[in-house]
Amino acid sequence: MFTPQPIGSVFSPYKDAAAIPKGLGAEHQAEGVLNILPEFEPGLADIEGFSHLFVIWVFDRSNGFDLIGKPPTDSMAHGVFATRSPRRPNPIGLTVVELLRREGGALHVRGLDMLDGTPILDIKPYMSSIPAETLRRGWLAEAEARKP
Amino acid sequence: MFTPQPIGSVFSPYKDAAAIPKGLGAEHQAEGVLNILPEFEPGLADIEGFSHLFVIWVFDRSNGFDLIGKPPTDSMAHGVFATRSPRRPNPIGLTVVELLRREGGALHVRGLDMLDGTPILDIKPYMSSIPAETLRRGWLAEAEARKP
Repeated sequence: MFTPQPIGSVFSPYKDAAAIPKGLGAEHQAEGVLNILPEFEPGLADIEGFSHLFVIWVFDRSNGFDLIGKPPTDSMAHGVFATRSPRRPNPIGLTVVELLRREGGALHVRGLDMLDGTPILDIKPYMSSIPAETLRRGWLAEAEARKP
Repeated sequence: MFTPQPIGSVFSPYKDAAAIPKGLGAEHQAEGVLNILPEFEPGLADIEGFSHLFVIWVFDRSNGFDLIGKPPTDSMAHGVFATRSPRRPNPIGLTVVELLRREGGALHVRGLDMLDGTPILDIKPYMSSIPAETLRRGWLAEAEARKP
């Protein structure tokens, strides 16, 4: 195993978890900045060419985990690995953001759903998509269908 | 920060890194199993409804990192955060797999690109895609265009 070390942190408009849009149809259009530490900035070379990025980060204000829980999108409980719950055995978050522009170690992005100050572990380029028509989305699609 | 703990490990046909398809047009169609430890198996409830999953895992046979490096897909060097290099500040891998079926704690999947025995940190449902036509893919698209 390894010891996680932050490569930077998120500047986000969300100061507490209640402010983050949740539930069916929640839109993550929030803009903010991924601030990468100066010592890691050379690792951003050529990232400007990608329109979208995966951000891997830490749920640093979450404690413990629940293997079964009710997401805000549904009235029924599901396994943690079938949800995006912050209460996970390893408190790791994953968000796809749109890269708007880069200024040195500052990546200006759209689509944040994490809290201000969230530690960033890794950034990877988003290279390809699974076509939407081939996706099955389990309980999420069922919850959407039940929605009045 | 947190101390990463494996929730399971990958049963993969790839026993050494040289066997993993790399480079432009590499197809990851390998089938294998995500073996989730019995104590975490309840967290898989309802995962069968999803056709695709994100797997977050550890490059456990990678040591150290390079901020700049040449990927197998290109003759030019790029920043580590613009590539999928295993030599990253935090040695975390991310793979999208297709879920074929579940047998208890065993998730049979297609699309592996990790080594046999790789520790798994997290699994998340793949809920939506960025439409392919809106993606820009930087150096990767340029390398593809240069390919004879």
